[in-house]
Amino acid sequence: MKNVEDYVKSIPDFPMPGIIFRDVTSVVEDPEGLQLAIDSMDRLLQDADYDLIVGTESRGFIFGAPLAYKNKKGFVLVRKKGKLPRETEGISYDLEYGSASIEIHKDAIRPGQKVVLVDDLIATGGTIEAAARLVERLGGKVVKMIFLIELTDLKGREKLSGYQVESVIKYEGA
Amino acid sequence: MKNVEDYVKSIPDFPMPGIIFRDVTSVVEDPEGLQLAIDSMDRLLQDADYDLIVGTESRGFIFGAPLAYKNKKGFVLVRKKGKLPRETEGISYDLEYGSASIEIHKDAIRPGQKVVLVDDLIATGGTIEAAARLVERLGGKVVKMIFLIELTDLKGREKLSGYQVESVIKYEGA
Repeated sequence: MKNVEDYVKSIPDFPMPGIIFRDVTSVVEDPEGLQLAIDSMDRLLQDADYDLIVGTESRGFIFGAPLAYKNKKGFVLVRKKGKLPRETEGISYDLEYGSASIEIHKDAIRPGQKVVLVDDLIATGGTIEAAARLVERLGGKVVKMIFLIELTDLKGREKLSGYQVESVIKYEGA
Repeated sequence: MKNVEDYVKSIPDFPMPGIIFRDVTSVVEDPEGLQLAIDSMDRLLQDADYDLIVGTESRGFIFGAPLAYKNKKGFVLVRKKGKLPRETEGISYDLEYGSASIEIHKDAIRPGQKVVLVDDLIATGGTIEAAARLVERLGGKVVKMIFLIELTDLKGREKLSGYQVESVIKYEGA
């Protein structure tokens, strides 16, 4: 029987030279890979008390939506600036080269609601830290952050030291 | 008890004047709304014989991934050009203003595999028609197209007359 990590394809020099891209699309393309990925992430949620799952555009949607459906929670989108149709709260954050802006619907989280953040992969943690700030500005409480893959050398976990961070598969090296 | 359409918010003049935007994010943000949406779409799949679900970036991921997980199928992504890391097949298609390019992994579908296409909404049908062409170029057979929302006045169904098209909620008028 295969493990979920057996379905991850590693692509050298994508999107730029020197980077090994850990591809989650090869996991979800396979019926067994998708089951293993969602069920593995779901096990990280079983001890959590929460109201909503928040997923970041766009691979976070692939994992966050099935987990929300399976656990009968709401699913809230964090999207790139300008994509959400109702009134939003926004934040900009630094990337290695340049910056990015993400948004959340202001009415998607009520003060006091407990939130789990979900994404496919944690590298430096910049996007998920920005998403957590958005949740907190709306009065939500981030109870956990769940990832399928963690690139441990990039130390996202240190940046997110105030949060409970869990991942299914850990890779050393970039 | 509410129906799934009760969770759709209608936003006038987004993204441009004269358009009523039918917002599916308000459906999935609610725990009951997400259950109703996925279960309603799932009923449209129960008579289908298929191997894979294909979803288009990015709202198609929110509905396609839970449906694939629930039915123990693989989930294949159609993304905007340049986002997929492995070898891709691509296609460009016309929009009302300008054009768009989408891609699929060449190895994601094997010749003869049966595919259901999933998206949140069908308007003119341009994106889903282009996605169907990609599937067919790889040798896949499109057995069904499933949408949560159909804007019937935009006649996407006519453009897709060679396919079996089903939707949960139908709106007249743009």
